[in-house]
Amino acid sequence: MADVSALRCVTCGAEYDEASIDYTCPACGPRRGTLEVIYDYGRIARTWSREALSKDPEQTMWRFLPLLPVRDRTYIQPLRVGCTPAYRFPALGKRLGDLAELVVKDDGQNPTASYKDRASSVVVIKAQERGETVVTCASTGNAASSLSGFAAATPLEAVIFVPRTAPEAKVAQLLIYGARVFLVRGSYDDAYDLAGEAAEAFGWYNRSAAMNPYLVEGKKTGALELAEQLGWNVPDAVFVAVGDGSVISGICKGFDELRRLGWIDRVPRVIGVQAEGSAPVADAFERSADAEGDVQIVDIEANTVADSICVGKPRDIVKAVRYVRRNGGGFVCVSDAEILDALAELARETGVFAEPAGATAYAGLKKLASAGKLAGKRVAAMITGNGLKDVASVRKIAGSPTEVDASIDALRRVL
Amino acid sequence: MADVSALRCVTCGAEYDEASIDYTCPACGPRRGTLEVIYDYGRIARTWSREALSKDPEQTMWRFLPLLPVRDRTYIQPLRVGCTPAYRFPALGKRLGDLAELVVKDDGQNPTASYKDRASSVVVIKAQERGETVVTCASTGNAASSLSGFAAATPLEAVIFVPRTAPEAKVAQLLIYGARVFLVRGSYDDAYDLAGEAAEAFGWYNRSAAMNPYLVEGKKTGALELAEQLGWNVPDAVFVAVGDGSVISGICKGFDELRRLGWIDRVPRVIGVQAEGSAPVADAFERSADAEGDVQIVDIEANTVADSICVGKPRDIVKAVRYVRRNGGGFVCVSDAEILDALAELARETGVFAEPAGATAYAGLKKLASAGKLAGKRVAAMITGNGLKDVASVRKIAGSPTEVDASIDALRRVL
Repeated sequence: MADVSALRCVTCGAEYDEASIDYTCPACGPRRGTLEVIYDYGRIARTWSREALSKDPEQTMWRFLPLLPVRDRTYIQPLRVGCTPAYRFPALGKRLGDLAELVVKDDGQNPTASYKDRASSVVVIKAQERGETVVTCASTGNAASSLSGFAAATPLEAVIFVPRTAPEAKVAQLLIYGARVFLVRGSYDDAYDLAGEAAEAFGWYNRSAAMNPYLVEGKKTGALELAEQLGWNVPDAVFVAVGDGSVISGICKGFDELRRLGWIDRVPRVIGVQAEGSAPVADAFERSADAEGDVQIVDIEANTVADSICVGKPRDIVKAVRYVRRNGGGFVCVSDAEILDALAELARETGVFAEPAGATAYAGLKKLASAGKLAGKRVAAMITGNGLKDVASVRKIAGSPTEVDASIDALRRVL
Repeated sequence: MADVSALRCVTCGAEYDEASIDYTCPACGPRRGTLEVIYDYGRIARTWSREALSKDPEQTMWRFLPLLPVRDRTYIQPLRVGCTPAYRFPALGKRLGDLAELVVKDDGQNPTASYKDRASSVVVIKAQERGETVVTCASTGNAASSLSGFAAATPLEAVIFVPRTAPEAKVAQLLIYGARVFLVRGSYDDAYDLAGEAAEAFGWYNRSAAMNPYLVEGKKTGALELAEQLGWNVPDAVFVAVGDGSVISGICKGFDELRRLGWIDRVPRVIGVQAEGSAPVADAFERSADAEGDVQIVDIEANTVADSICVGKPRDIVKAVRYVRRNGGGFVCVSDAEILDALAELARETGVFAEPAGATAYAGLKKLASAGKLAGKRVAAMITGNGLKDVASVRKIAGSPTEVDASIDALRRVL
């Protein structure tokens, strides 16, 4: 229940009162004018501590309530969002490239099986605080299924726009949670624009990435948790897949806020991982050497097996590039083959089954590790979605089962 | 790290030393001769307490290690198994039939997304303690994917037998975790027999339901957790879906052991829920009025949309019937339509997305509640598997998305 001091434009720095603005800076517009939620960190630091937190039995991301922009507990859903497991796999880390520590944080264990639950759970509360009746979003699939899942047990109606190519499991989730679902004949980027127009035309509350300032607040909790799970001794680097750029922005912001509070004394380098066929944020990062200068945006037609990060016109690109620059992090790109290979290796070696986008963070980590760039480092990968979300991709790489008649002789013949 | 006193035949009561026996009672054979793991409960009660447990920060089922049959922590996997959320939905409980409390325990939040992880995590440890190199099982899908997932990060090889009709997502899990997978041309019951013959012929360690005495030990932890999550004030009734009968046996045993330890003063009635087309355990329960008499078994050809409990020849039927009789519980059967309806209602009303077998427990609860039989009662449902495991079933009931061109005019036309 933090008091929000202001919503600040990520580009021009103009500050707005929470009550006066819904989405983006009127002067800078969408993308360049995404808003950051600013708190009175001094006050939070005086009234909250790591020790107080350590005594809180809450086992969801709501243990970080003093740093989240909701009024009170009234609208918090019971679903266990966040507090996902952070696993250490030391032997695998050694093999990958002599890592001092390998941490895999499995956000596929969220209620609707993706990192997006962290954001949706916040927005569903904000919608109810504002008295909204309909929430909408465009999504490659995960943001939508998470919005639908968190809206399910509320009076809110969810209206969802996904590209026609969204994986079957994600669409099934939307429908079963009772959302009204539109399959858009076009890309995610087309669906995004349509959701925005619809929200404006029909007065729906818009949860689409980078429009809604509160999403990043939920998304920062992955960083808060990781820091706490590692005893406030943060890793040297944290890898995360990048589509629109909102998750990585949240992770940078989370670490940054912990440093402001004095709970950690340095931030990890946050490394964004993009698919080679969908890398406009990594490209903009290369082109924009100065964190405070203009971010150079070039949109593309995106194409990758990792549907959740198949984004040609990333909406949080400005925030992502600026935050990663300030953070001292960077970007790495991986091929679809590397993504699927990483997915298989992660499952086989750890038992963590990720969707392609979820495994992308691990693919980037693996790439830098095998180039010797992570030797001696403590490194974490954020696994942002569960493999059950997209089993079709698995069948491309996982080999085939053997059919056999139900007799031991038949089995002996095939063995 | 409990000391196992004996393995005791559920039918003849003969006791065996752990080192002397692998699977079932030689005198009574499989099914009738399944073995129960017996501990020195007096010693456990003297050395362990609810208070000691409450101070244990462990957030997996291994917080109950003093009541589990593993030697030490050596082979415990890092995967977060158990400690699944137990949600209260009071308004829904009122609507269903004036329940005093409705608890939904979501075991779809386990690492491989089913209750079976509780059992597989134990067996993978036992296999390593015994020096085995290959583990095998037959499965409708969940036991297999969980065995494969927990074996993934170990030196164990997993060899899996599933019916050819197993849902795609479950087969994908098996393959990605690196198991060797046989799709058996036949039913689950045929696959079961083949896995048993193969285990014997090739010297593999058999994790199939009711063969391996340690499975029920993992499965009992759902009851232990639920009791702790409700502050040791157990519900009046706990509903759980029944296939082979092992999960319900585990739940009965868990509550029974808590009573032996003096941690609870009564056990909840445990209510098994079967699909009408696959109800041989419920039928045997009706035919076997005396808990200590012979259990009357009639096998059938099973058929239900709930693939995980589509079992015509249930292997733990004797234990299940005896335990539920002793427990004072009972059985209820539901149609496939009631299962799918319950699945949709649960998702829409709570945000918990279950696979058909997972929703079966809720279907049984709903049936008794709407008949007025649960008014004023505190009731829990165990959701044993995640809906992402079987999205094909969802498409049968969840309606269809609307296709739309990417323009606001097109959207206005369809709205």
